[in-house]
Amino acid sequence: MAGSTLGIIYRITTWGESHGPGLGVVVDGCPAGLSLTANDIQTYLDRRRPGQSHISTPRKEADAVEILSGTFEGKTTGTPISLLVRNTSQHSGDYTAIANCYRPGHADYTFDRKYGLRDYRGGGRSSGRETIGRVAAGAIAAKVLSEFGIRLTAYTRSIGPISINPNAFDPDAIRETVTAMPDKEASAMAEKFLADCMSSYDSAGGVIECVIDGVPAGLGDPVFEKLDANLAKAVMSVGAVKAVEIGDGTEVSTRHGSDNNDAFRLRNGRITKTSNHAGGILGGISDGSQIVLRAHIKPTPSIFSPQDTVNRDGEEITISIKGRHDPVIVPRAVVVVESMAAITLLDALLVNASARIDYLKNIYKN
Amino acid sequence: MAGSTLGIIYRITTWGESHGPGLGVVVDGCPAGLSLTANDIQTYLDRRRPGQSHISTPRKEADAVEILSGTFEGKTTGTPISLLVRNTSQHSGDYTAIANCYRPGHADYTFDRKYGLRDYRGGGRSSGRETIGRVAAGAIAAKVLSEFGIRLTAYTRSIGPISINPNAFDPDAIRETVTAMPDKEASAMAEKFLADCMSSYDSAGGVIECVIDGVPAGLGDPVFEKLDANLAKAVMSVGAVKAVEIGDGTEVSTRHGSDNNDAFRLRNGRITKTSNHAGGILGGISDGSQIVLRAHIKPTPSIFSPQDTVNRDGEEITISIKGRHDPVIVPRAVVVVESMAAITLLDALLVNASARIDYLKNIYKN
Amino acid sequence: MAGSTLGIIYRITTWGESHGPGLGVVVDGCPAGLSLTANDIQTYLDRRRPGQSHISTPRKEADAVEILSGTFEGKTTGTPISLLVRNTSQHSGDYTAIANCYRPGHADYTFDRKYGLRDYRGGGRSSGRETIGRVAAGAIAAKVLSEFGIRLTAYTRSIGPISINPNAFDPDAIRETVTAMPDKEASAMAEKFLADCMSSYDSAGGVIECVIDGVPAGLGDPVFEKLDANLAKAVMSVGAVKAVEIGDGTEVSTRHGSDNNDAFRLRNGRITKTSNHAGGILGGISDGSQIVLRAHIKPTPSIFSPQDTVNRDGEEITISIKGRHDPVIVPRAVVVVESMAAITLLDALLVNASARIDYLKNIYKN
Amino acid sequence: MAGSTLGIIYRITTWGESHGPGLGVVVDGCPAGLSLTANDIQTYLDRRRPGQSHISTPRKEADAVEILSGTFEGKTTGTPISLLVRNTSQHSGDYTAIANCYRPGHADYTFDRKYGLRDYRGGGRSSGRETIGRVAAGAIAAKVLSEFGIRLTAYTRSIGPISINPNAFDPDAIRETVTAMPDKEASAMAEKFLADCMSSYDSAGGVIECVIDGVPAGLGDPVFEKLDANLAKAVMSVGAVKAVEIGDGTEVSTRHGSDNNDAFRLRNGRITKTSNHAGGILGGISDGSQIVLRAHIKPTPSIFSPQDTVNRDGEEITISIKGRHDPVIVPRAVVVVESMAAITLLDALLVNASARIDYLKNIYKN
Repeated sequence: MAGSTLGIIYRITTWGESHGPGLGVVVDGCPAGLSLTANDIQTYLDRRRPGQSHISTPRKEADAVEILSGTFEGKTTGTPISLLVRNTSQHSGDYTAIANCYRPGHADYTFDRKYGLRDYRGGGRSSGRETIGRVAAGAIAAKVLSEFGIRLTAYTRSIGPISINPNAFDPDAIRETVTAMPDKEASAMAEKFLADCMSSYDSAGGVIECVIDGVPAGLGDPVFEKLDANLAKAVMSVGAVKAVEIGDGTEVSTRHGSDNNDAFRLRNGRITKTSNHAGGILGGISDGSQIVLRAHIKPTPSIFSPQDTVNRDGEEITISIKGRHDPVIVPRAVVVVESMAAITLLDALLVNASARIDYLKNIYKN
Repeated sequence: MAGSTLGIIYRITTWGESHGPGLGVVVDGCPAGLSLTANDIQTYLDRRRPGQSHISTPRKEADAVEILSGTFEGKTTGTPISLLVRNTSQHSGDYTAIANCYRPGHADYTFDRKYGLRDYRGGGRSSGRETIGRVAAGAIAAKVLSEFGIRLTAYTRSIGPISINPNAFDPDAIRETVTAMPDKEASAMAEKFLADCMSSYDSAGGVIECVIDGVPAGLGDPVFEKLDANLAKAVMSVGAVKAVEIGDGTEVSTRHGSDNNDAFRLRNGRITKTSNHAGGILGGISDGSQIVLRAHIKPTPSIFSPQDTVNRDGEEITISIKGRHDPVIVPRAVVVVESMAAITLLDALLVNASARIDYLKNIYKN
Repeated sequence: MAGSTLGIIYRITTWGESHGPGLGVVVDGCPAGLSLTANDIQTYLDRRRPGQSHISTPRKEADAVEILSGTFEGKTTGTPISLLVRNTSQHSGDYTAIANCYRPGHADYTFDRKYGLRDYRGGGRSSGRETIGRVAAGAIAAKVLSEFGIRLTAYTRSIGPISINPNAFDPDAIRETVTAMPDKEASAMAEKFLADCMSSYDSAGGVIECVIDGVPAGLGDPVFEKLDANLAKAVMSVGAVKAVEIGDGTEVSTRHGSDNNDAFRLRNGRITKTSNHAGGILGGISDGSQIVLRAHIKPTPSIFSPQDTVNRDGEEITISIKGRHDPVIVPRAVVVVESMAAITLLDALLVNASARIDYLKNIYKN
Repeated sequence: MAGSTLGIIYRITTWGESHGPGLGVVVDGCPAGLSLTANDIQTYLDRRRPGQSHISTPRKEADAVEILSGTFEGKTTGTPISLLVRNTSQHSGDYTAIANCYRPGHADYTFDRKYGLRDYRGGGRSSGRETIGRVAAGAIAAKVLSEFGIRLTAYTRSIGPISINPNAFDPDAIRETVTAMPDKEASAMAEKFLADCMSSYDSAGGVIECVIDGVPAGLGDPVFEKLDANLAKAVMSVGAVKAVEIGDGTEVSTRHGSDNNDAFRLRNGRITKTSNHAGGILGGISDGSQIVLRAHIKPTPSIFSPQDTVNRDGEEITISIKGRHDPVIVPRAVVVVESMAAITLLDALLVNASARIDYLKNIYKN
């Protein structure tokens, strides 16, 4: 099925395999009149690029984006924006050993069962490189949202057992640390933890948090197009995510209503909440507070340690996965989670433009 | 926006307010030839019906379903199945006090901000009664799935601090306990805990788990229509859910790859996994193992204890919510989570029918 | 498949069979804040009601609509509007003769081939009564459009060989004649023609025209969501329509560019076209002129004259269709075409609200 | 809005402007296991390529397609197939004269009104080159359909006043004549007619017919996803199409039921129709007969003759459109109409795979 398209108005369609000619995305429904250059997108792609630190795969990929359509004289025209990133660093030879076997924790087996065949080179469509299209589309979404004063900030909250100290939150550290943690001390500890993982041929997971400021109240639609439901889908659709939380998330199940409800009060004459357990969403609709979400990421399934598995011919074998892999994908996935949140929020903002007769009169009576 | 429709092939559209004439759902895309009676649906609706125990709202609603279309001589015809449940027990008088105020933890404020007005009676569209349409559609989905040997089992895993003992799992207890816990001892403790909540005018949350057996490998589509992404959306779209986990969920973030990967082995000549940390889904596609998901439910926001809030006129007030409310919604939400899982899984199964040329030849060469 | 849902933002889902308990529609995505009563909808339904003249089926159906959700204190709330019309005049006995046979020109055979079974009573889902949901949704769409000064006018342009005289166009006549022709003289001739049809146990077809005034320029989206493409789909989806024309339609194929192009000029300082061969749409987007479309309707397939056919058992038979049928469906289909045009145009108007950054700033900077 | 995506299961997303870096399409939902090479697609693209005869624009475009994803070892993998055609022959200098003016019959004015700006080079997104994506996707669709014995044949039925003689139908002539007429004599007359058009600086329109053989009964869905409704949308969405007919089309409005109904009879033990006025579709569902549709194409709006119009500054001007234009687009549009029909039919075939419980059991019980 057509599983590579997401969104109602801001609709993105990604494509591409790890070792094919390239990857990309078509972004349809971007409003006309936005200033946009390749550099706006490249900045985001560079945040997910491999080969930038000792805790990321040593593969070097330029991942340079080309805008193929949808802009004219530096502005979006309202027509589809097609973005292309050519693959340049494929070492297909690295992967022939796994052509016939089912790597534990990967999608090799399920793709084979679903389609009867698969592009086994580097995971094909299930490779982490698939997120290039997401990030490129997220960069554009974030730029549109910034026009309305909406800002997204994602970061690593934990790697393995090492969590950031919320009281030491340093936003600049997100870009300065190799872990994307907003806490340099925690980051140093995480680096040490990861060095241990690598030396024992193993891998680690972690938690990514994304907060969104400046969101007007009223975004999201009741029942199935709730903002939290769509955020959950968007974030869970990223490979390796196994849990999604909104606001206080799993903690709410052990609370009392009297602890968990956020009281409304006035601040400077505006209605506001005195706490934000809800994470900025009530009844699936943004309430004007900061939106907060978390994604729990599993450890990289590709490890050097030997593992039991089965091959396509139905034989039990043991494999040791060679190649260039991240010991943890969390730092590079931070921008992916931020992008998915931006895409989802922008779609809700665009859809909401037609929710009220008075909104429409602002447009059609001008 | 049209937020009340879900699904690609099995497409459901729910409608209705707590205190309007009724609620219902149109189920389109149900395959033709399924035996279906109103009783199949009523059985599910009865599981979410209020007034069945001392830990549920004392409102009595018959919630009797009428099939208005889509079946003929006891079989589905392939055309839309329209289901109607009339509201019969509305006490609008109970709600006039809150017409003008924004209850903490509810969607009153966000609906007002989004639409400029709202049906305040009993929460209107954001009432828990909105789930009637979901459960009716879920009953049909579950019946279709059963034709293919797929069985869903949902239950309460915890209420407040009281969790079931997995080693004492008793499936019969799910229907026999008022908590929907598969563990009578835990259920008794949870009842005691809830009695304390009620006596202190407070409420509680909990966790619902759903397992699905008999799922063939290959369901779900890569990238955005991943099975876990759609399950996350479906379950997060249920009011009061604040986190969704697949398989081992949040626990994976502190694991190593060597602990978290599920090895493939042969059992009776068939490929199988020796563990199921992944919860039955790899790369967004079912792997033939049991699917496992959990929903974390916040405490009922309606409590008798006084709360600070603001009214529509922008005045700070204190309210104490009267009326008939559940101290915990978890037991009644179990069938809702099960229904959403069934709806999502069936859609994936139907969509997958056209994934391969050889599948299509099975149909069109007959 | 879920074929009973139409639209992106203004999304309607119809359901119901000719001889089931009832028919209806769920209208989702209607903007909040519109005044709406059952009478607004009933007025439209009354225009398609049978039994109103000697050229329509003598079946009497009250077709009284009930609003089940989506309004509060006389205004739309932004949530789904569910509308129900109970069937009251089913004579199932009339149809048992055709339970097993395939009526020429009807969908009996194709439904059986598609689904393996069918509700044969009165055509089931393929009955003309299916249009009740369309007309109910169209009434609401037309009311929203009227808020923006957009007015739709549909009428019978011809019945069999009898066409209206455009120079004698009398808008009042549309509601005053039994043919829905805006020309009383032509209508009288058409009545005579139809009397002849009936006396020879035969039926007739005709042409419906719909014009739309007051449409702002800019509605419709390039490529696949062109306004004319969606109008064509919407109108062709009405049973018995076999051709759709926009503007000068089929005539353009024999024209020269110099004859067919509409020149732009200024009128009262505004850009306007000096002719309207294009029918108000250029490149799939409304150009501010009157939108013009036509639907060609086949003669009613149910006729008393004997016809050759085959039954379910594969036997060749001759049938003569008894029962209460319209000798021509054109007059009653006028409001159906108008409704489909209204639904399509409203959706384009709502979708267009998010097309430009400056539109969005009108909403979100308020 | 996202207007560049079409289809439910076989979902295509086109992108690109006439004078941007290139054009293309992402084809998602193509079943896995189809043999596919770039040559399969190039063959179709070559049929719409300009510069191949004296009645087509002298622009030379290689329009060479590159497959960027979705195939592996010569077979489709079920993942999105991204296709790219680079623009190579843009003469932007040709178009600067029209940057500021609204060409009659073109979308310049409506794009400006919709988006506030436009890519004016060669029509930008509203250029005929936009159809490259449609044809590339149509080539794949036709190849899938051929696996099920379904064959599409489109041709020019008339150019201006010159129509083919149905009794002289010669299928080989479609590819051999520059007009794509299946009648060499008519083609020669049409060429003469077009030479006259060109010498008087004018243009012509025409009619394209498409017939589809081998379609199984049962494709298409009731109500809004009727096969004829979707064909009408798909074909009307092609620029310059102003009317769409199915089967006998506009002629049916003057017929009697007794003339227009197609009788069912047995032929070689199979149910068949003795005539095909319906054009292979009854109640929106294929009936197993040949599907017949026609598109009426307006004359090319770009003509050398001077025309009145208005520019962006609101001044009345006279323009004479220079550049390289087809005097008639019909011959090159033949493959576009065929492609749109193929795309639509394939989607209906894929969607129908899940219509019946017994179909599904063919797949899931294997």
